[in-house]
Amino acid sequence: MSTPAYDELCQRHLRLHRLAHFQALGYWDQASNMPTKGNEARAQALAELGGLVHQMATEPALRSLLAQAGGENLDDEQRANLREMQRAWTAANALPQALVQAKSLAVSRCEHAWPAQRAANDWSAYVTNLREVVQLSRQEARLLAETKGLSPYDALMDQYEPGMRTAEVDRVFGDLRQWLPGLIQTVVDKQAQESVTEPIGPFSREAQRALGLEAMRLMGFDFEAGRLDESAHPFCGGVPEDVRITTRYREDTFMPSLMGTIHETGHARYEQGLRRDWLGLPISQARSMGLHESQSLSFEMQLGSHPAFAALLRPLLIQHLGEQPAFDPGNLYRLLTRVSRGLIRVDADEVSYPAHVILRYEIERPLIEGQIEVDDIPALWDAKMMELLGLDTRGNFKDGCMQDVHWGAGLFGYFPCYTLGAMYAAQWFASMRRELPALDADIARGELQPVFDWLSSRIWTQGSRWETPELVRRASGETLNPAHFKAHLQSRYLA
Amino acid sequence: MSTPAYDELCQRHLRLHRLAHFQALGYWDQASNMPTKGNEARAQALAELGGLVHQMATEPALRSLLAQAGGENLDDEQRANLREMQRAWTAANALPQALVQAKSLAVSRCEHAWPAQRAANDWSAYVTNLREVVQLSRQEARLLAETKGLSPYDALMDQYEPGMRTAEVDRVFGDLRQWLPGLIQTVVDKQAQESVTEPIGPFSREAQRALGLEAMRLMGFDFEAGRLDESAHPFCGGVPEDVRITTRYREDTFMPSLMGTIHETGHARYEQGLRRDWLGLPISQARSMGLHESQSLSFEMQLGSHPAFAALLRPLLIQHLGEQPAFDPGNLYRLLTRVSRGLIRVDADEVSYPAHVILRYEIERPLIEGQIEVDDIPALWDAKMMELLGLDTRGNFKDGCMQDVHWGAGLFGYFPCYTLGAMYAAQWFASMRRELPALDADIARGELQPVFDWLSSRIWTQGSRWETPELVRRASGETLNPAHFKAHLQSRYLA
Repeated sequence: MSTPAYDELCQRHLRLHRLAHFQALGYWDQASNMPTKGNEARAQALAELGGLVHQMATEPALRSLLAQAGGENLDDEQRANLREMQRAWTAANALPQALVQAKSLAVSRCEHAWPAQRAANDWSAYVTNLREVVQLSRQEARLLAETKGLSPYDALMDQYEPGMRTAEVDRVFGDLRQWLPGLIQTVVDKQAQESVTEPIGPFSREAQRALGLEAMRLMGFDFEAGRLDESAHPFCGGVPEDVRITTRYREDTFMPSLMGTIHETGHARYEQGLRRDWLGLPISQARSMGLHESQSLSFEMQLGSHPAFAALLRPLLIQHLGEQPAFDPGNLYRLLTRVSRGLIRVDADEVSYPAHVILRYEIERPLIEGQIEVDDIPALWDAKMMELLGLDTRGNFKDGCMQDVHWGAGLFGYFPCYTLGAMYAAQWFASMRRELPALDADIARGELQPVFDWLSSRIWTQGSRWETPELVRRASGETLNPAHFKAHLQSRYLA
Repeated sequence: MSTPAYDELCQRHLRLHRLAHFQALGYWDQASNMPTKGNEARAQALAELGGLVHQMATEPALRSLLAQAGGENLDDEQRANLREMQRAWTAANALPQALVQAKSLAVSRCEHAWPAQRAANDWSAYVTNLREVVQLSRQEARLLAETKGLSPYDALMDQYEPGMRTAEVDRVFGDLRQWLPGLIQTVVDKQAQESVTEPIGPFSREAQRALGLEAMRLMGFDFEAGRLDESAHPFCGGVPEDVRITTRYREDTFMPSLMGTIHETGHARYEQGLRRDWLGLPISQARSMGLHESQSLSFEMQLGSHPAFAALLRPLLIQHLGEQPAFDPGNLYRLLTRVSRGLIRVDADEVSYPAHVILRYEIERPLIEGQIEVDDIPALWDAKMMELLGLDTRGNFKDGCMQDVHWGAGLFGYFPCYTLGAMYAAQWFASMRRELPALDADIARGELQPVFDWLSSRIWTQGSRWETPELVRRASGETLNPAHFKAHLQSRYLA
């Protein structure tokens, strides 16, 4: 059966995939390699390429090709691919090229200036750049909202977590807000009774890198299809065929880098595990940012902080950092699961982390919808930090509202995905335990393959074959159910 | 005075510059970072982008814009810029996009397979890929030849060294062929009488890297606008705003990496020294490959092997490698200027190097013009190696005709530039010495700024302002004069 319109659409998406390759490379290099004076040229190059990709994604011929393909005799996978092409087309066509390029430039400038401004605690300098990014993001939100028939914030969130709405987030986060501060207090009080031995540094960058590479091997990273590098803000980038993850090192402690590397390895395996025969087509893409985070948190929290995982880490720590009393498995587990209220989201434990996300959600949503302005952020941040975590951040922009790259990068609507991801991850492991009764015993003897196989068959190889609720239901037998996350925290931290 | 057509051409060239940014980044990353499984995606992405850049460089509107701009009221610099736009347009329009993309793909595959095939001395596997590259390069040569009214090989060489013709190369190389083998023999005999103390290794990669960075600092490299990395085959890549040079390390000797790094630093400073206000326009580009090589050889040979330079290197060597008798300045100078007949071009000293270039020129020219075939290369290589350097390479493809990346990369017509560059470099320093009587004394006391200033004002900041013969005449008072190279070798090696 001939499907000329569908085939033409596939060819066009493969072209876009080949050009997006350079966007991914450009961003990765910018974060991990690029010297200062290279920034202006990179920003201009990314804006030019972004404009070009946008132009190709909005060519007038696509509208009729999409309509024609809808009438062709497609199988189920092709139809799912067409659905994702339509979704991409709708999003791209909502935005004029000038806006896409203006935002790309504003973001490059804001991100480039941010590290020095943050180090100097210079909110007033940062806010000048941020205001421009917010203004352009509001335009983006308004245009996407009109096209999709959603509210402006929902329209942005839908880019990262298709189908997720503030009504659902409000429900889930509203519930969390009820019990989370109490749980944090209970756990902190409980842990105050425990004695924990701190690892004694310094830990050289070289030893930590070797340890991180070993942990990546343990977690099944394919080094022929990816790399580990350094950047100020760790991330997983590159392309599915060549995944670039980054970490950062502090000589006084190895834990953040090690667990961060395991986290990014979860993202990486999702990308490395996408179906090769679909690559370059919309159906091949990772389903959503929440699903992506569910993989990194499956690796970092469900597996990496599993009661039995400390015993697997111990020989690697001894090999690369030397033997220490702190590396006793029981003590390591206490270190890995220690809960404390801190200012920095990326350093937060899994119990207090959702508080950081709720805070950001409650600021970025009214910011995008125009109920507050950029200048209102610091006061709101201070108030919510006190309310949710009992911490005073007044005047400390560096460790407060300037700590994240997201807003400066124009990624509004992204933050909720972190906590949705934690909930999905808990749901995967609840489902795995029902299906694989030997799961915890397997993990205890270092047999992680059943976990990888489950994630591969249910998530990685599914790409964007299904809409999110359907993917979640097929994977775990039910749609998003936050009870699993609560049960996970209670069983791990209150038992 | 309004110049609408010229202005429009400038805008289009700036767009091309911004997209070429990703080609440069893609090639650099491929050589210095990319894991194996990333290759196919990178090859496809580079082919896609190459095709797109070629499409933009051949848009029909350019023909009339170039004609209109020629009638506009342009100043001398604008007119030189227009001349270079015309040159680029002529070259691009000679080639159909399908050929450009096919060559890009063939080259990516050939280059990717080459390292393992070379290590295995597997000429028969390599030749399958090479044959395709040669066939596409012959098509390219024939089309360029028709457009430019040149012979096929001249048409290719003209891409790297505009205006250079085989008639001139034959004259210069013919002269070299007369006296070079005799000179090599005389120097080898003379040096056999000298005693040289070898440095004692091993030298760690880390120490060599630190030493290389220090040498780059001494040579004025701007680290805010570039980096040093590792690759199998050293090169200078990236973009003028962010120059990426590479080296490779052997633990048994530090000299090849150190001098290679100084060599690439010469290329890098040419790029870093191009006029910023012209950047992105054809007039801003480095004039030619021969001129480029004249900068790397000014750094590596004229400066780096200068009799006084060893004393400048000595403290850096002691700091990073520890003190050794071999680091005595007299001994270091003998090490830096030791001449020996070897199989490998990139390891060759400056006296025997031209023999390697003549050999390649005498093979690639008939290969492109169809007088010989790819299968004839090994026998010709063996015969010429014996004739020019008295070395037997039969059966040793690895260190023979498989040693260079150029042919597999489709860079036919490039090799002569290396020896032209050596000649230009000798000509620059002869001219500098006439103008700056204190030059050698300055170098001896580590004052290298006069050399950098001379090169900056005569070469770097001139970009493509002048045609090559005019640039050479303005810089040194005469056009290419190989007598300076002969005099340089005689004074350094026979004195």
